[in-house]
Amino acid sequence: MPPSYLRGVRFLRQHAMLITTILIATIISSPLLAQTDQLLSWNDTATKKAIIEFVGRVTKEGSPDFVKPEDRFATFDNDGTLWVEQPIYTQVTFAIDEVVAMAPQHPEWRETEPFKSILAHDRAAMERFSIQDFEKVVAVTHSGMSVQQFQEIVKKWLAEAKHPRFKRPYTECVYQPMLELMQYLRTNGFKTYIVTGGGQEFVRAFAGPTYGVPPEQVVGSMGKVKYEYDKEGRPELIKLPDVLLIDDKTGKPEGINMVIGRRPNGAFGNSTGDQQMLEYTGAGDGARLMMLVHHDDAKREYAYGAESKIGTFSDALMAEAKKKGWIVISMKDDWKTIFPSAVR
Amino acid sequence: MPPSYLRGVRFLRQHAMLITTILIATIISSPLLAQTDQLLSWNDTATKKAIIEFVGRVTKEGSPDFVKPEDRFATFDNDGTLWVEQPIYTQVTFAIDEVVAMAPQHPEWRETEPFKSILAHDRAAMERFSIQDFEKVVAVTHSGMSVQQFQEIVKKWLAEAKHPRFKRPYTECVYQPMLELMQYLRTNGFKTYIVTGGGQEFVRAFAGPTYGVPPEQVVGSMGKVKYEYDKEGRPELIKLPDVLLIDDKTGKPEGINMVIGRRPNGAFGNSTGDQQMLEYTGAGDGARLMMLVHHDDAKREYAYGAESKIGTFSDALMAEAKKKGWIVISMKDDWKTIFPSAVR
Repeated sequence: MPPSYLRGVRFLRQHAMLITTILIATIISSPLLAQTDQLLSWNDTATKKAIIEFVGRVTKEGSPDFVKPEDRFATFDNDGTLWVEQPIYTQVTFAIDEVVAMAPQHPEWRETEPFKSILAHDRAAMERFSIQDFEKVVAVTHSGMSVQQFQEIVKKWLAEAKHPRFKRPYTECVYQPMLELMQYLRTNGFKTYIVTGGGQEFVRAFAGPTYGVPPEQVVGSMGKVKYEYDKEGRPELIKLPDVLLIDDKTGKPEGINMVIGRRPNGAFGNSTGDQQMLEYTGAGDGARLMMLVHHDDAKREYAYGAESKIGTFSDALMAEAKKKGWIVISMKDDWKTIFPSAVR
Repeated sequence: MPPSYLRGVRFLRQHAMLITTILIATIISSPLLAQTDQLLSWNDTATKKAIIEFVGRVTKEGSPDFVKPEDRFATFDNDGTLWVEQPIYTQVTFAIDEVVAMAPQHPEWRETEPFKSILAHDRAAMERFSIQDFEKVVAVTHSGMSVQQFQEIVKKWLAEAKHPRFKRPYTECVYQPMLELMQYLRTNGFKTYIVTGGGQEFVRAFAGPTYGVPPEQVVGSMGKVKYEYDKEGRPELIKLPDVLLIDDKTGKPEGINMVIGRRPNGAFGNSTGDQQMLEYTGAGDGARLMMLVHHDDAKREYAYGAESKIGTFSDALMAEAKKKGWIVISMKDDWKTIFPSAVR
């Protein structure tokens, strides 16, 4: 009998009361008890059943599809999958607001496009902005400060800004059923990652409190940074206006490989930008779950698809989903509620 | 009283026997019991005391330096910090062996440098190789295959190759005290990451079984990849000969930000390539632990420092360590044993 066993028994005898207390606390807070109740905002449709069935196969020891807890990974797109992306990506709204906030320090912007149109609140002109125009806007609003400073700016903006239609903070324009799905997967041993075309540092600024996803589990489009020293000689990483990775389409599997280095077991998206992530996930062995949120609920949120510039869900993607067995989530039919209640 | 509490009590009553069994098993295998015995290969010097003192401060609830378990991060350089880097980096030996193995498919290499010198086993010429020469060698041996295929090649090589002096596999030329330190930190809630100038995919191929570090916790120099489909239409990531990040010097904080997105609480290195990682770590608030392995044990391993091309420990770095309170680990004085015993 190894000495560690003896020590264990002795420890057990000496701390019986403490152990009982810990045990009761553990049992009471045990996620096991709540497991079947976790998808409360999902209607009892085939979609919900598919989620529960997948998790059952992957977590059942002895099952041919069993995956060890440390190997369970799920990746989630952000815009349109976890939070609202209409009428315009939240990060673009942020950038536009930042241009307005920075304008007093840049009198030249009054005469220079694309800033001139932004400062004139010329929506028609802004809708015609080219990729290059957006790059200029992102460059001035997303570089020149340290990573920490940038995240503080984002947090401050998110604390004040409100969605134009829902009149609530953007971080509350998140989908309650998806929050429950992430939590349900985590309860079942999955690590949940965000894999977004949005900026990695932008999403890291709110992913913790909003989604329960820590910074190291946010993969996003990445800009270059420069290692510098501030006035006090403290090192910091300064954001540069150069792109390192566009984490969209084929960039999603690339970003997943850089940061995770594994093929996810489950992947969740809503647009053509997520197709390669779902393909890459589905190409692995064993049980896999690929899902696409379909925005078909104009009443409670928005209805858009193939014709939308933002969050395009093309007919080709719908055909691919059918062919590959990817599950299309109908917001209208599968979701009991869309947003969290005001008090969380 | 919430219903979950009642359910908890009921569950507890119904499963008392099962719970007791689980509890005993948990206590016996509890890392808590072994905590103070984990640094067995460290001599009882000030260095070992500093490690234990740091971990005590960070893990003690109520202490001003307390860090929540989910926020505890430690980063480790690999070459010269976790495994032997002399007489030449292991990955370079791998690349050279691969050139030899690939030579039959490349008759032109017999007449083209730097391959000609490698195939002629011309050590003198190889020692004069420029960065560009090495880049050519890395390009042909580290690209053109999928990430998975590359890792299989690395695993196969590591299973057969032996260190020229120690006559054991490279994965056994790892430092036992550092394995214990990583495990000790993990037992205390830290996530241990490798942050290496070596290739990310190269190190991922062995970091799991060798160090207990999973793929998502390996940050390394990164090459670009291309998303492609194989003959069966399965997507894969093909390694390209282009560099995305050199994870050395200022590249280490950059890589840490990309993959971890947090400032580590502890950082461990051995050369000028690690200076910025230690600086960046030390610039955070609260308790921080920065350590540098000093190779001063020619008898049991190697003795090298400022004069070495590989793993340079410059006099300036030594001065910086003293100034900043970074702890220099003397392999000779602080380590009881260097390598794991043959049977692990």
